[in-house]
Amino acid sequence: MKKELSSKTEVLVRFNEADPLGIVWHGHYIRYFEDGREAFGNLHGLCYLDVFKQGFVIPVVSVQCDYKRSLRYGDTVIVETKYIPTEAAKMKFTYRLFKAATGELVATGSSVQVFLSKDDSVLQMSNPSFFEDWKKQHGQDQ
Amino acid sequence: MKKELSSKTEVLVRFNEADPLGIVWHGHYIRYFEDGREAFGNLHGLCYLDVFKQGFVIPVVSVQCDYKRSLRYGDTVIVETKYIPTEAAKMKFTYRLFKAATGELVATGSSVQVFLSKDDSVLQMSNPSFFEDWKKQHGQDQ
Amino acid sequence: MKKELSSKTEVLVRFNEADPLGIVWHGHYIRYFEDGREAFGNLHGLCYLDVFKQGFVIPVVSVQCDYKRSLRYGDTVIVETKYIPTEAAKMKFTYRLFKAATGELVATGSSVQVFLSKDDSVLQMSNPSFFEDWKKQHGQDQ
Amino acid sequence: MKKELSSKTEVLVRFNEADPLGIVWHGHYIRYFEDGREAFGNLHGLCYLDVFKQGFVIPVVSVQCDYKRSLRYGDTVIVETKYIPTEAAKMKFTYRLFKAATGELVATGSSVQVFLSKDDSVLQMSNPSFFEDWKKQHGQDQ
Repeated sequence: MKKELSSKTEVLVRFNEADPLGIVWHGHYIRYFEDGREAFGNLHGLCYLDVFKQGFVIPVVSVQCDYKRSLRYGDTVIVETKYIPTEAAKMKFTYRLFKAATGELVATGSSVQVFLSKDDSVLQMSNPSFFEDWKKQHGQDQ
Repeated sequence: MKKELSSKTEVLVRFNEADPLGIVWHGHYIRYFEDGREAFGNLHGLCYLDVFKQGFVIPVVSVQCDYKRSLRYGDTVIVETKYIPTEAAKMKFTYRLFKAATGELVATGSSVQVFLSKDDSVLQMSNPSFFEDWKKQHGQDQ
Repeated sequence: MKKELSSKTEVLVRFNEADPLGIVWHGHYIRYFEDGREAFGNLHGLCYLDVFKQGFVIPVVSVQCDYKRSLRYGDTVIVETKYIPTEAAKMKFTYRLFKAATGELVATGSSVQVFLSKDDSVLQMSNPSFFEDWKKQHGQDQ
Repeated sequence: MKKELSSKTEVLVRFNEADPLGIVWHGHYIRYFEDGREAFGNLHGLCYLDVFKQGFVIPVVSVQCDYKRSLRYGDTVIVETKYIPTEAAKMKFTYRLFKAATGELVATGSSVQVFLSKDDSVLQMSNPSFFEDWKKQHGQDQ
């Protein structure tokens, strides 16, 4: 059985992220997802810059967010990021956002990334070897 | 049969919307969707401010985007926004983004909005009457 | 003599804040200034929300930034925010941004804010009493 | 006498650019300046991409903005961009923002850019020859 890999990080809502309704504009949640992915990468050795050094970039090819509750300026958000194993040459994450003060679920979402070679932007149809290694090291290969 | 309601608008990619890879950061597409919704509202009388004057706000409760091609600084994007009829007390739109210079499909996506009363933020379980009227006037009620 | 009042906070450069040159787009420094002001407010009891509760909003009427060095994705920035005493009914801050890893000065800047009454947006020609109190409590009145 | 070189462009305020006070967050004006510079470049042959093709990048080393009136979602802004001749190896612009509906002055500002060689990021101490040519062609050399 695969080990569950996840991370938690805190993001403080900026004044300039709230819209005229006083709530965080929905597009900014995509940033919080990225903050979550970044924290995951820092914790588990899969940072954007790590991947870049291996010769790949990992553009997002799909993103989705369901909004449950609003966030306001001054709120602290907990971003929980979970790695979702997949056979395909992709990186998939799901996200859960919580209001730190109350623990309420604020939003859920997911993203999918692919591997492109850094130099010629060619889409990788199978996982780069560094990523296969990463999977083995983190119990995600079986 | 319902009449198909849509709009097209052009958005110019800003320098500051492109990321270190030289391509538009994926989160900005959510802005382009909003630009598309705004153009739709201007064309068909369903602007955010129109809705606000009727006593409602229409927060996005779900958004989703699939990325097909990258956009670069200097590109012009055509945002095609289509109203998707639904029985529920919701507003649903789909989006198709094209590169103006080549006509290539860049991304597809969708969003769902609900109606909250402006004053007390109560979720409307049935369509506000102004929206029922709008649907009738635009051939979306049958 | 007035006591010098300042604060330091750390900001992590987000991937989406860097532009096609790989460096942080200059407009984002204005956000870092706001992050600095916020940290100052948290430390010294002069948060935006504190001011709001007193019945005032404090729009920025002037901002200025000089860029010395570039910042890249992955950098941590130290924002040093300093309160600048003034006789006028204004709040003035200066900022110094440093690269955390090297201590190099990245940018300097300043901002000026005024007081508007929250309800009718009337510009205050003299300091609100809560702000006079704050100045006294923080050794900024003489 | 030097010919005055300027441009005007219109920018529509986006919903997500307004803050919880309902007014455009001050940091976004820096984007409007960039939109103005871009329109100036398109009109007078001095686009970012033009300069890039000549082998240079032109980072902003100084920016300043004075806010006179607030902007709201739905407003159209006229950005007037004026080239300011200077002896130094720099590009300087001033900006005036007007509310299109009323003609009221909303903000004034300025920016300074320098020339770096694209390949090695070396600061140019004298104007690149393409820029000297541009100045001559546009009556800015004497």
